[in-house]
Amino acid sequence: MAAPLQLIPLDHFPLVEPGDDLARLTTESLQANALQLQEGDVLVFAQKVVSKAENRYRRLSQVNPSARAASLAEQVDKDPRLVELILGESAEVIRVRPGVMIVEHRSGCVLANAGIDRSNIHSDPDDPRVLLLPEDPDRSARTLRMELGRLTGVTPQVVINDSVGRAWRNGTVGIAIGCAGLDPLHNQIGDRDLFGNVLEVTEPAVADELAAAASLVMGQAAEGCPVVLARGFVFRQAEAGFSPLLRDKSLDMFR
Amino acid sequence: MAAPLQLIPLDHFPLVEPGDDLARLTTESLQANALQLQEGDVLVFAQKVVSKAENRYRRLSQVNPSARAASLAEQVDKDPRLVELILGESAEVIRVRPGVMIVEHRSGCVLANAGIDRSNIHSDPDDPRVLLLPEDPDRSARTLRMELGRLTGVTPQVVINDSVGRAWRNGTVGIAIGCAGLDPLHNQIGDRDLFGNVLEVTEPAVADELAAAASLVMGQAAEGCPVVLARGFVFRQAEAGFSPLLRDKSLDMFR
Repeated sequence: MAAPLQLIPLDHFPLVEPGDDLARLTTESLQANALQLQEGDVLVFAQKVVSKAENRYRRLSQVNPSARAASLAEQVDKDPRLVELILGESAEVIRVRPGVMIVEHRSGCVLANAGIDRSNIHSDPDDPRVLLLPEDPDRSARTLRMELGRLTGVTPQVVINDSVGRAWRNGTVGIAIGCAGLDPLHNQIGDRDLFGNVLEVTEPAVADELAAAASLVMGQAAEGCPVVLARGFVFRQAEAGFSPLLRDKSLDMFR
Repeated sequence: MAAPLQLIPLDHFPLVEPGDDLARLTTESLQANALQLQEGDVLVFAQKVVSKAENRYRRLSQVNPSARAASLAEQVDKDPRLVELILGESAEVIRVRPGVMIVEHRSGCVLANAGIDRSNIHSDPDDPRVLLLPEDPDRSARTLRMELGRLTGVTPQVVINDSVGRAWRNGTVGIAIGCAGLDPLHNQIGDRDLFGNVLEVTEPAVADELAAAASLVMGQAAEGCPVVLARGFVFRQAEAGFSPLLRDKSLDMFR
């Protein structure tokens, strides 16, 4: 039997609060799960815990919607303060309709509502708060990677994932919104296939596929499992972050 | 340590030829890899081997392009015979530009070139052939599931995957183009999150995430690995096939 790819949930991961040291919590959770990092391991973090540790909460009561936000809010039937936060996190509004705003997030990802989340958040009903994406997910991934290397003696690759909707298909899938230490896109253009034909275009978006695989494991944990260890994936080393996954707007037929 | 999700490649899977009994080849490969099917296992098959077994090859020399195909072929700079085959496999042409046609495949999937493939195909350069998607991927998945159950005594869930491009992001990811025995979309609308809030919309497209996870393993095998055993995923039983993953055209903002 060949070596499998394993997606190992870090069980009983604690609830993360602003200011928590996520690398330390992860190291403790690895120990509690009787796991030791090995060379080549990839740790996939749910965006939500990274955002919580970085205190990316915003209280709606502290947001003053602009005139543009107020007008859009009517169009999309959302709280104008939430729309203001979405606009503040966005480079461009791509589509709107009642209930949904599809935008290009500051990071370049196309996301509904700029990835702003209301679920799995302790919230006072009289003063609701929401959670933004990390300020710079690639930087968060690099920091986690370095800190985990320092704490454990083994430097893992890091992917930060989020569950997003897509064009054409129902349901959400995990995608990479940040990464460190691995090439997110395995460019095989020019490689030869099994029969020696030059492959025309085959560029697996491996960081997105790792993010999707980890999302399966995160999703099925009854108590929530925000960190998954992927072991057995043969990645290529790179320090480009996740941005090779972003299609240039001028080449995109669906913008 | 909690039970991991394992993606186990069936190593040394033989090259598949038209008429081959894919369920029997898979059973033999499981044995050769010292694997026994267990209740709850999901087998993910690359579209290509299913198409090959079903002899979905077409020789371009045997295709007569219509006037519409000839005209589109000029627009997209492709062989008019290939364009004829793409049109024959499509319900609707969605976008065209030089080098690429994005269509709705007969099955409802939005795919470049209707999923027609030229790589990993033995082809006579003087009479090239291409490979279409299976006639009915859900039916193929059901048949594999039943046959594998009969041959092994354990009935696995089956997903057929393909690597596809996407809006907004570079690179390909595995998606499910057919499935049998499992619910492809875990509808959690109305479930409650960790803090008792009703989740607004969380519908993980689990069959797509399984397809992506398997694609990672298929892609990294040097010799090609068209069948992957996914073990440890807690699926929901269903017989709906993959179509719950298809967004209704009228609800799609990117059609």
